[in-house]
Amino acid sequence: MRLNGSRGIPAHQQRYALCFGAVLDLIHLRFQHYKAKRVFSAAGQLVCVVNPTHSLKYAPTLCAAAQTSTERGILPPCHHHEAVHDPELVPCMCPLFSCPWEGHLEVVVSHLRQTHHINILQGAEIVFLATDMHLPAPTDWIIMHSCLGHQFLLVLRKQEKYEGHPQFFATMMLIGTPTQADNFTYRLELNRNQRRLKWEATPRSVLECVDSVISDGDCLVLNTSLAQLFSDNGSLAIGIAITTSKVHNSEAEM
Amino acid sequence: MRLNGSRGIPAHQQRYALCFGAVLDLIHLRFQHYKAKRVFSAAGQLVCVVNPTHSLKYAPTLCAAAQTSTERGILPPCHHHEAVHDPELVPCMCPLFSCPWEGHLEVVVSHLRQTHHINILQGAEIVFLATDMHLPAPTDWIIMHSCLGHQFLLVLRKQEKYEGHPQFFATMMLIGTPTQADNFTYRLELNRNQRRLKWEATPRSVLECVDSVISDGDCLVLNTSLAQLFSDNGSLAIGIAITTSKVHNSEAEM
Repeated sequence: MRLNGSRGIPAHQQRYALCFGAVLDLIHLRFQHYKAKRVFSAAGQLVCVVNPTHSLKYAPTLCAAAQTSTERGILPPCHHHEAVHDPELVPCMCPLFSCPWEGHLEVVVSHLRQTHHINILQGAEIVFLATDMHLPAPTDWIIMHSCLGHQFLLVLRKQEKYEGHPQFFATMMLIGTPTQADNFTYRLELNRNQRRLKWEATPRSVLECVDSVISDGDCLVLNTSLAQLFSDNGSLAIGIAITTSKVHNSEAEM
Repeated sequence: MRLNGSRGIPAHQQRYALCFGAVLDLIHLRFQHYKAKRVFSAAGQLVCVVNPTHSLKYAPTLCAAAQTSTERGILPPCHHHEAVHDPELVPCMCPLFSCPWEGHLEVVVSHLRQTHHINILQGAEIVFLATDMHLPAPTDWIIMHSCLGHQFLLVLRKQEKYEGHPQFFATMMLIGTPTQADNFTYRLELNRNQRRLKWEATPRSVLECVDSVISDGDCLVLNTSLAQLFSDNGSLAIGIAITTSKVHNSEAEM
């Protein structure tokens, strides 16, 4: 498909950009009326309000362990157990910041729900509305997202990679092996104040480390001033969509 | 327009993503055969090879003035002359890093062409192929882009905002006033290695400072590892499209 020569961006994409921006504006507006609800619907989109995990069970350890980026470097490395053939039985650490839990891949979802009270939402497209963006780093905002027969984990992290300069990092992890993750593509989209930022990539497996994805910067990265431009009243709405990469391949062959 | 419920991303957008990725791959390939050419065509796209301005006239001053981010802070602030009514007669500084030239808005294009040998390309959509991405910061890659009756300046800058951590910043400036700039939207797109990053915003006016746009981070920002993932053989291809915002507004009212 070629772009529209006279204006550069095809009309359907302009309309889509416009629409999605309006949807995110409406979501911010509806959120003011649904403060008490964790999940609500606006403009046909399922919106999940995600509070920071800052105040959860592991927060004291988390803050103590990550006061400086140098100290973060001494956290134990992630485990890799590629030799196990049944994906359900692959040993897995909790993907959350400094949680010491270890188990099998098949039980990590119940660990995340029961121990960390992380919401799980159904649907290939949802809006992740992270609240209290002003809280100091390190802070995580996390939800699970169930679609296309798998569970995904969206992690938004505020972290000081460079001391005194907090940044926001957003990535999608598949609760599955790296081979399974290669079958999917995820998209994160921000749209507000005449700016639009879109990141598309293959999800990483939870067996790889969230920490290393973020320290490599191989994810959506926002500095504080850009995060503020995309936020409304301290909340950041991120549109999420997941698709199977196999669809791309078969379309390419047509 | 709603997304396709079953897969999250509409089929035409999937095809577009796929196509644009293939186009950028082809551009990298063709570039190997056209090393000597500054402008060539690949897959129907006009490609401009942009060498760094590092070695140009002002490079020695540039390097001396910007060894540390603290020293950059003492550069003179940008001029603002909103009181002049004829846009052509607005006083304007050279938007390039540490060039001392000052003149009127109407002659900044000829200054950029004659003194800095900056290419000017026609067309609403072009591909900017920046070479030698490995060169040390600070380095600029710059072209002018003529379309929709105006000239735009695309600036890609490698800069160490945090010492020892070079980042790439890309922004589009209109060679015109801030009021004129509000009429346009620009899009920058990177697509390679199963990753896609897209930034859309209103261009800034050259009367505003490139330095302040970059220090605010209100532009496309890439860390070094992500820039490497999007590069091929040390060259980074950025798809550029410009459109008029007025089209958006009238479509919204329909």
